[in-house]
Amino acid sequence: MNMSAARGVRGTRERLVVIGGDAAGMSAASQARRLKGAEELEIVAFERGHFTSYSACGIPYWVGGDVPDRDQLIARTAEEHRARDIDLRMRTEVTEIDVAGGRVRARDVDSGAESWTSYDKLVIATGARPIRPDMPGADAPGVHGVQTLDDGQALIDTLARTRGRRAVVVGAGYIGVEMAEALINRGYEVTVVNRGSEPMSTLDPDMGRLVHEAMEGLGITMVNDAEVTKILTGEDGRVRAVATEAAEYPADVVVLGIGVRPETTLARAAGLPLGDHGGLLTDLAMRVRGHENIWAGGDCVEVLDLVSGQERHIALGTHANKHGQVIGTNAAGGYATFPGVVGTAVSKVCDLEIARTGLREKDARRAGLQFVTATIESTSRAGYYPSASTMTVKMLAERRTGRLLGVQIVGREGAGKRVDIAAVALTAGMTVEQMVSLDLGYAPPFSPVWDPVLVAARKAAKAVNAPLS
Amino acid sequence: MNMSAARGVRGTRERLVVIGGDAAGMSAASQARRLKGAEELEIVAFERGHFTSYSACGIPYWVGGDVPDRDQLIARTAEEHRARDIDLRMRTEVTEIDVAGGRVRARDVDSGAESWTSYDKLVIATGARPIRPDMPGADAPGVHGVQTLDDGQALIDTLARTRGRRAVVVGAGYIGVEMAEALINRGYEVTVVNRGSEPMSTLDPDMGRLVHEAMEGLGITMVNDAEVTKILTGEDGRVRAVATEAAEYPADVVVLGIGVRPETTLARAAGLPLGDHGGLLTDLAMRVRGHENIWAGGDCVEVLDLVSGQERHIALGTHANKHGQVIGTNAAGGYATFPGVVGTAVSKVCDLEIARTGLREKDARRAGLQFVTATIESTSRAGYYPSASTMTVKMLAERRTGRLLGVQIVGREGAGKRVDIAAVALTAGMTVEQMVSLDLGYAPPFSPVWDPVLVAARKAAKAVNAPLS
Repeated sequence: MNMSAARGVRGTRERLVVIGGDAAGMSAASQARRLKGAEELEIVAFERGHFTSYSACGIPYWVGGDVPDRDQLIARTAEEHRARDIDLRMRTEVTEIDVAGGRVRARDVDSGAESWTSYDKLVIATGARPIRPDMPGADAPGVHGVQTLDDGQALIDTLARTRGRRAVVVGAGYIGVEMAEALINRGYEVTVVNRGSEPMSTLDPDMGRLVHEAMEGLGITMVNDAEVTKILTGEDGRVRAVATEAAEYPADVVVLGIGVRPETTLARAAGLPLGDHGGLLTDLAMRVRGHENIWAGGDCVEVLDLVSGQERHIALGTHANKHGQVIGTNAAGGYATFPGVVGTAVSKVCDLEIARTGLREKDARRAGLQFVTATIESTSRAGYYPSASTMTVKMLAERRTGRLLGVQIVGREGAGKRVDIAAVALTAGMTVEQMVSLDLGYAPPFSPVWDPVLVAARKAAKAVNAPLS
Repeated sequence: MNMSAARGVRGTRERLVVIGGDAAGMSAASQARRLKGAEELEIVAFERGHFTSYSACGIPYWVGGDVPDRDQLIARTAEEHRARDIDLRMRTEVTEIDVAGGRVRARDVDSGAESWTSYDKLVIATGARPIRPDMPGADAPGVHGVQTLDDGQALIDTLARTRGRRAVVVGAGYIGVEMAEALINRGYEVTVVNRGSEPMSTLDPDMGRLVHEAMEGLGITMVNDAEVTKILTGEDGRVRAVATEAAEYPADVVVLGIGVRPETTLARAAGLPLGDHGGLLTDLAMRVRGHENIWAGGDCVEVLDLVSGQERHIALGTHANKHGQVIGTNAAGGYATFPGVVGTAVSKVCDLEIARTGLREKDARRAGLQFVTATIESTSRAGYYPSASTMTVKMLAERRTGRLLGVQIVGREGAGKRVDIAAVALTAGMTVEQMVSLDLGYAPPFSPVWDPVLVAARKAAKAVNAPLS
């Protein structure tokens, strides 16, 4: 059956097929539906798991008990999508994309039955898969990833069942530190085992050091420069400890938080273009490069870093949602773009707030940029105002041009979202000198008279203007 | 004595004279001193009051009891300035500027003695004066302004002395609402009498309405559309009530918070250029227009509104500090500019946060701009995260170009400083369509997956693109 015949069978109505029923895929489907009714556009979405449109970013807070009910993490259920005329097929895994034939093969996960579905337009939103260490014991009971709601439920079940009180978190990135908080909140003794020299490798080590100190202040044991070599199990087959070259850390439960990679197995097999980080490459309209009728978004794509001019892989719900919005608009015949990212991220561990945007020192070097740095300490509110807390702000600016390159912030309440000031300034290509006169919100309960970001900008501007030694 | 003779007497050292010892004046003096030592530059500063470099913005929190000690509001004392080789003359009021002669006449407030001081460079930082209503009873005991530390002390003394529990605040701008909070915190029954249709006339009335409702929720009685006609006194001569055309409001204490005007009496007498709002006009280096060796900054100048292209008067400590920094740099032979403001302001009343930047509807109309508006409700954190609070964001965008014109936010914790996102976007001249893809910090404790500001931008972008009806 050729494509035109396939279309003939379905009449004039176009069919949009979506692979992946989470943030990017279902945002795309919903936006396309908003713009085109069912009489014009048929939408079929395949999801291999049990849930749609959920907040994976919320899992640590559910595990930690801040969010009591799993269903609160589900923005929209399968039934709600179906009520909007989206033919959502749950527990159905796409196993092949036939680009030339304009069709996908899908398998019912439970029955194993397979069938082909043709498409006029295709959205690939296959997400990311967690990096699972290839080591003995990594699959033992009591060892958990926290990528999906199913993962989260399994971990919660383990926590409820085990009598133990010792948890080891492997990895000290966002997931690792958020899970450390969750486990602290559940009353565990928490050890974080980290390959890097400091936690939060998305920060420069000097700022990671502040996170390290603060985490220890919260009672978390941080083990840096430590590669996990195996996970040890007891006689019952369950995890009992985590081993590095140097030591063993007893554990009743282990959480793996060592990052994710784009899930592009299908795309690779279909010959679609992938970048250096293994993610799909798209144009600014989120179309897969060289493919007029295929879009991709969310954790399975690479995105343009507007500061370095290079492609990156960033798995983050906020990007996935924006991608979906752009894809849905374009797939429905509208026009929207996703110009790229500046690399903003914010996280917390108990009352510690950690934020970054733009380039770290090593990113800037890799991009061929020369830069100055400025690090300052200031407060979240006027110094005399009650509950003013200190924060450290580090700023990178390009030599000669003075262009802002990046900002990192470590502090307490009121520190994290200040990174947005820098995110917008980066997007606009501002210099640190221009930033000094930014008209930011000032009143004693909200900021010192010079906002901490401006204090950093002043110091960075001075460094840009200083004669080279 | 002519100028060159005056210089001859002092040798080759230049003299910088500063009129006004608060934020702008002393920032200028300090920055000039940082760049030039006492051997090159003599700095003489005149302050007619008892205090230097204090946070007038902090007075409501001192009165309310959040800041226990007045001295915490003083960033730098007279002694500290003198230790930095600034010849600070307290309780000394400049009574005349002789521009042609390059000198100022100053009077010792206590002794009444007058003398002339010549200058090579002059900084005018005379601040603002509160608008005092010209009505019977306005000077009665128990009626207080809150402009200076002396004002604040007098009010605190009254509060300590009076047995009463009823306070009336006249005016519902920033000072008015902050003083309402302060008096609530002191256990008073608070009535705010407001000339406008809603409190916070720096917001559009629809947003002011939200403030009105929230203030009533806090137990504050709001009386709108009410002009105070007189202040009634008892037999003891003290205030007993505030009268409007329609009613009388019993009061044991009255706080006047009806705004300020530039204090430019000296400048006007000296023939220096003033704008429509009565403030000094400067160039971008904060030089008084047409005068190579005179700078002015802080509450006594008008500033360029970068959005409307028109001059405005905004009395705000953060601007005064920036002006001082720029003036000090330039007066010491360096180079810095203050490009203008976008009109950002943020305030709180108990847990209510109020913020604005850019143009209101009426400002946009006055500037000749056509615009669309978008108002949305969202939350400060992911909806499922504990203590997520709702906020309302209103956005104005120019018709056709889609350029952001203004943002107003009313909400609870986490709402106010989000206005900074818009402040930077305004400065950069971004369109609301560009804002939709801003890479803002996202994690469930900090933001929904679409930040409220981006939700508003999406809606505004849609309105910009909608066909005109």
